[in-house]
Amino acid sequence: MKFTNFLQISILLLTLTFLNYFIVYQKCPAVTYDDKTVIHQLSKQNVNEKIFFITPTYSRPVQEAELTRLSHTLLLVSNLRWIIVEDSDQKTLLITQFLQRISKMKIFENFEYTHLNVETPKSFKTSRRDPNWLKPRGVWQRNEALRWLRENTTEKGIVYFGDDDNTYDLRLFEEMRNTKKVSVFPVGLVGGLMVEKPLIENGKVIGFNSIWKPKRKFPIDMSGFAINSQLIHDKHDAYFSPYVPRGYQETHLLTQLIHSINELEPKADSCTKILVWHTRTEMPKLKKI
Amino acid sequence: MKFTNFLQISILLLTLTFLNYFIVYQKCPAVTYDDKTVIHQLSKQNVNEKIFFITPTYSRPVQEAELTRLSHTLLLVSNLRWIIVEDSDQKTLLITQFLQRISKMKIFENFEYTHLNVETPKSFKTSRRDPNWLKPRGVWQRNEALRWLRENTTEKGIVYFGDDDNTYDLRLFEEMRNTKKVSVFPVGLVGGLMVEKPLIENGKVIGFNSIWKPKRKFPIDMSGFAINSQLIHDKHDAYFSPYVPRGYQETHLLTQLIHSINELEPKADSCTKILVWHTRTEMPKLKKI
Repeated sequence: MKFTNFLQISILLLTLTFLNYFIVYQKCPAVTYDDKTVIHQLSKQNVNEKIFFITPTYSRPVQEAELTRLSHTLLLVSNLRWIIVEDSDQKTLLITQFLQRISKMKIFENFEYTHLNVETPKSFKTSRRDPNWLKPRGVWQRNEALRWLRENTTEKGIVYFGDDDNTYDLRLFEEMRNTKKVSVFPVGLVGGLMVEKPLIENGKVIGFNSIWKPKRKFPIDMSGFAINSQLIHDKHDAYFSPYVPRGYQETHLLTQLIHSINELEPKADSCTKILVWHTRTEMPKLKKI
Repeated sequence: MKFTNFLQISILLLTLTFLNYFIVYQKCPAVTYDDKTVIHQLSKQNVNEKIFFITPTYSRPVQEAELTRLSHTLLLVSNLRWIIVEDSDQKTLLITQFLQRISKMKIFENFEYTHLNVETPKSFKTSRRDPNWLKPRGVWQRNEALRWLRENTTEKGIVYFGDDDNTYDLRLFEEMRNTKKVSVFPVGLVGGLMVEKPLIENGKVIGFNSIWKPKRKFPIDMSGFAINSQLIHDKHDAYFSPYVPRGYQETHLLTQLIHSINELEPKADSCTKILVWHTRTEMPKLKKI
């Protein structure tokens, strides 16, 4: 072997080393993983448990805005499938194009979505003048998501009902990931309280601080609990119902899944932290012109 | 040179190549940059122009929720400085801790923030029973941000007034980056319209579709324009004023910066796309217990 050959091969290898270095760096030009970042923690946590984030949605002036800001939160969560269920007889172009665009903006590899639709029967629809609590909302849509999950997934995960107008701290998703059956956490700005929450003693739920219909078996807002998907598969008949009184959807579903509040798993530092808020967006005053 | 030496060096170089490859990949384990993603586009765009995102904020039940979801949007924008100005006589612990936490969750290298505070004088404060438009809001806070910018930055950039309750599409930030003087774009759900926007002819602004106080020289919402920071430095006396009639803050500032609407630069596909919405969050009904 000649020295020139050796030199040529060495130069080639050195070039490869540097090229590789810069090509790879080009792929992540401005991304840092600080040791203390939540995102870094996410990647170290048990991200094998996928989160199935179920969002019923319906056409209204603020719809695109609501979904836009919610999508920015969800983009920052790893291993999540966003299940959007439209209240309409067909998938709208607005939501179809929105989801296609968002899914291309992924931060983590596995941002996935499922786009479903089912129309609330006419007799159950709220008219524009009705107060928004008069009739059940999102019942058919959340049920459609549960049906889809049972028929189309075997993957383990956590099921969460995340409406398009609420606000979610990124830490909430990590809190819910290791739910064995049903986990619970405080919800801000709901039921007339700054925070509605389970009361904890010795690490167990012993009651709730709810003042709105406190006699419900599970006086919890829809955004205050998460369910292990295994339970959804096991109790394959568990669904929401349009025939229960106002405020009883959560209790109706949970009583089909577990027997008592002893089975609830308190999260968010023994239910001391607020990581989800029941925010509501004003209907804008639009003039007819 | 012996053949064994050559072999040793070759093996060393190969090892270095692979080590380098894996070490670098370890640094960005779950981040992908699809060719079509907005984030990829961001990194290719002129990100040298920093965005100074000015947010006046005040203590209220929904404050933390509003700032939380806004922060998720801003985390996805490269080269941005978030200037939060509290309406209070001192920086609150809530916002101080919030900003410290958020700044550690950076996606891009340059997520920066500035935390300021200035209290609105008592005589200009809205009382709880007043309608929220009775007195000017955010005037002292936005002015404090402008003062800070002039005294503390020489870096070129774009100044944008982004309130904590509005909704921002990520594409908005790229639209505003190449503002030469003042750029304008449509705003959704404001002024009684689904979209309030500049009217464009041959690439120039020739008027506005506003129906609310359309006689203003610049009938634009606070979130409908962005300013090159050079102009802020050049016109060093330009400020908002608490003494102008309701709805005239924008016109008051802009008339100090430019002479006519001919100088406005239309963005968002000739002002055809809605990339910012004037969303408002309901005040939650809290019971006294």
